[in-house]
Amino acid sequence: MITNLADGRIRRSATRMADGRELFYFDDSEPFVSGDADRTLAVDLRPLPPAGGGSHLRFDVLTGEWVAIASHRNDRIFLPPRDECPLCPTGRGTVPSEVPAPGYDVVVFENRFPSLTTRATGVPDLVDGDPLWPRRPGTGRCEVVCFTSDHSSSFTDLPVARVRTVVEAWADRTRELSAIDGVRQVFCFENRGEEIGVTLNHPHGQIYAYPFVTPRTSALLRQAAEHRRRTGRNLLADVLDAERRSGARVVLAGEHWTAYVPAAARWPVEVHLAPHRDVPDLAALDDAERDELAHVYLDLLRRADRYFDGVTALPYIAGWQQAPVGEGRELGRLYLQLFSVLRAPGKLKYLAGSESGAGAWINDVVPEQIAARLREVAE
Amino acid sequence: MITNLADGRIRRSATRMADGRELFYFDDSEPFVSGDADRTLAVDLRPLPPAGGGSHLRFDVLTGEWVAIASHRNDRIFLPPRDECPLCPTGRGTVPSEVPAPGYDVVVFENRFPSLTTRATGVPDLVDGDPLWPRRPGTGRCEVVCFTSDHSSSFTDLPVARVRTVVEAWADRTRELSAIDGVRQVFCFENRGEEIGVTLNHPHGQIYAYPFVTPRTSALLRQAAEHRRRTGRNLLADVLDAERRSGARVVLAGEHWTAYVPAAARWPVEVHLAPHRDVPDLAALDDAERDELAHVYLDLLRRADRYFDGVTALPYIAGWQQAPVGEGRELGRLYLQLFSVLRAPGKLKYLAGSESGAGAWINDVVPEQIAARLREVAE
Repeated sequence: MITNLADGRIRRSATRMADGRELFYFDDSEPFVSGDADRTLAVDLRPLPPAGGGSHLRFDVLTGEWVAIASHRNDRIFLPPRDECPLCPTGRGTVPSEVPAPGYDVVVFENRFPSLTTRATGVPDLVDGDPLWPRRPGTGRCEVVCFTSDHSSSFTDLPVARVRTVVEAWADRTRELSAIDGVRQVFCFENRGEEIGVTLNHPHGQIYAYPFVTPRTSALLRQAAEHRRRTGRNLLADVLDAERRSGARVVLAGEHWTAYVPAAARWPVEVHLAPHRDVPDLAALDDAERDELAHVYLDLLRRADRYFDGVTALPYIAGWQQAPVGEGRELGRLYLQLFSVLRAPGKLKYLAGSESGAGAWINDVVPEQIAARLREVAE
Repeated sequence: MITNLADGRIRRSATRMADGRELFYFDDSEPFVSGDADRTLAVDLRPLPPAGGGSHLRFDVLTGEWVAIASHRNDRIFLPPRDECPLCPTGRGTVPSEVPAPGYDVVVFENRFPSLTTRATGVPDLVDGDPLWPRRPGTGRCEVVCFTSDHSSSFTDLPVARVRTVVEAWADRTRELSAIDGVRQVFCFENRGEEIGVTLNHPHGQIYAYPFVTPRTSALLRQAAEHRRRTGRNLLADVLDAERRSGARVVLAGEHWTAYVPAAARWPVEVHLAPHRDVPDLAALDDAERDELAHVYLDLLRRADRYFDGVTALPYIAGWQQAPVGEGRELGRLYLQLFSVLRAPGKLKYLAGSESGAGAWINDVVPEQIAARLREVAE
């Protein structure tokens, strides 16, 4: 099925892979490379068994958080040779890839090794029949977003128009995944760099649709509810206002967006990017906001790559914190959290005893210095 | 000052370093190597400036957690050559070390690059004067625990009697640090392996005395309060009982201690070790419990080193979750959390987008399989 997005600038084509997984092309330029002139989409001819779902969720009674147990993922593909890249268009390598088309601009599809899937199989309600240990199927969705068909490229190399297409894809997927029964939160993110565990080098991100409110957002909702009770206002909107008023940590400001280093940054490089208008998620952004986002997001990522002298590709995690679906939605507000685990060239910030064991973060860098550096490396 | 511990089996000698930091020897064998026959302790002759404290805490209003901002630590010593090891006794290397004595069994001293210290300097109450961003001094304490004077050894190589001395040191420090004004929680832990960021190879652990309840414990207290309200019982005691009843994840059981893989384990290798008696912390253990702990802890660590074929030294984090000091103490209960970031030989579990960005854990291994393997590799 083909639909037009962004005033007809982007063509979205939906199809399915050989094992039944969904795949969506987002093409932004003639001749709409993912299909031929007749708009016939390439067919995935691989002899794959039907996609299944083997993960389940267990409730961690010590923290109140759900943990996904996804043992089938331990066998997933790990840094394959370039000619076996599953994210390149089919025909470029020696084996058929996950993407049947001979080319694409941006493509999104269901992960072959998903932690969460709508095909999750049923499990008994309790581990060992004990009410201390609730269990349920790993219902949800994990999608892969290929930012470009160019294997050796990087997000920061994309032209603004292509970034705009990625924004459109994120918004489209957020809207559709939020509508899946049981989904409570949609998280679009990119892990970049082998230092943080990327298993495929082809430029790509991921989208997780969780059947629970994530722990980070749960903490935010507790804080935001208390703030609402005390002031009647939205916490994230007040934080943005305070950052713009102070200016000490503002990195860049556009007409619709402002980027700032949070006052209590926990990573050696961390910056948040928030829209000026109260919106719950990417799907709620209007065209002008999406257009500017393509510019400022790319600007931020390029500054990240100039952050450390001698490091041309900063390993980073970029994650879109969105309001949950359903209860608590009015307390949330869209923002991007971009951060790096690099604390100096060649030195990683490890999450050791204090962080991983106790959850207590120690940042070796002062937030105002992060902001100063991110301002300094503007183009 | 010299005191006798563990029925006179262990001699504790307190002194100070050249810059005023405290240092404690725990010697368990004649001739009490840290002092000479007259029990005169070696003096630290290094020309050090007085120890200071440069860190402060900022409140992260988005999560409700305190973050330590400790910029002076970014210059700390990173994998020094062996003859400059600061944890070896003085005289073994080419430069005077942190430990003035020519030998020791176990030694504990204040970290030279502390995230938290009782010498923390005052800071304005608010960042930028905004009530959204509370700030306070990084008051607390960070100590280093050297498990042996043998640079090339490892905790798993220690004799049981030496482990017993480490247990005594942990208990002693927990008791003393808990009494410091403002300290809310004491966390004894070991980071082992360069894979998780260890910056000194000499076998050592750390002790953090936090001026706040750590996020992991805050989550536990929320869960335990709810459990107490509903059942009248202690959550951690009920979890231990349920694990012993089920047996599916029990790894080893002694007279006073049981080790089990938690039902919702979030790490590829994770095991908890809990005392059978309700105790808040290590300081509350009696002699019989401490004696057995030396055996079972060592047993667990040695199993960890046999967990993966071809990996002789598992990178791990071992952290003692203790009840907080003051409010909520009655809801806490001592247990050890031992976990590894290794998911297969040569493959690390990275905390990428889902874990680091959203706080949502995905474990590629089924908890019952972790337990089975830990049972299988018993000596």
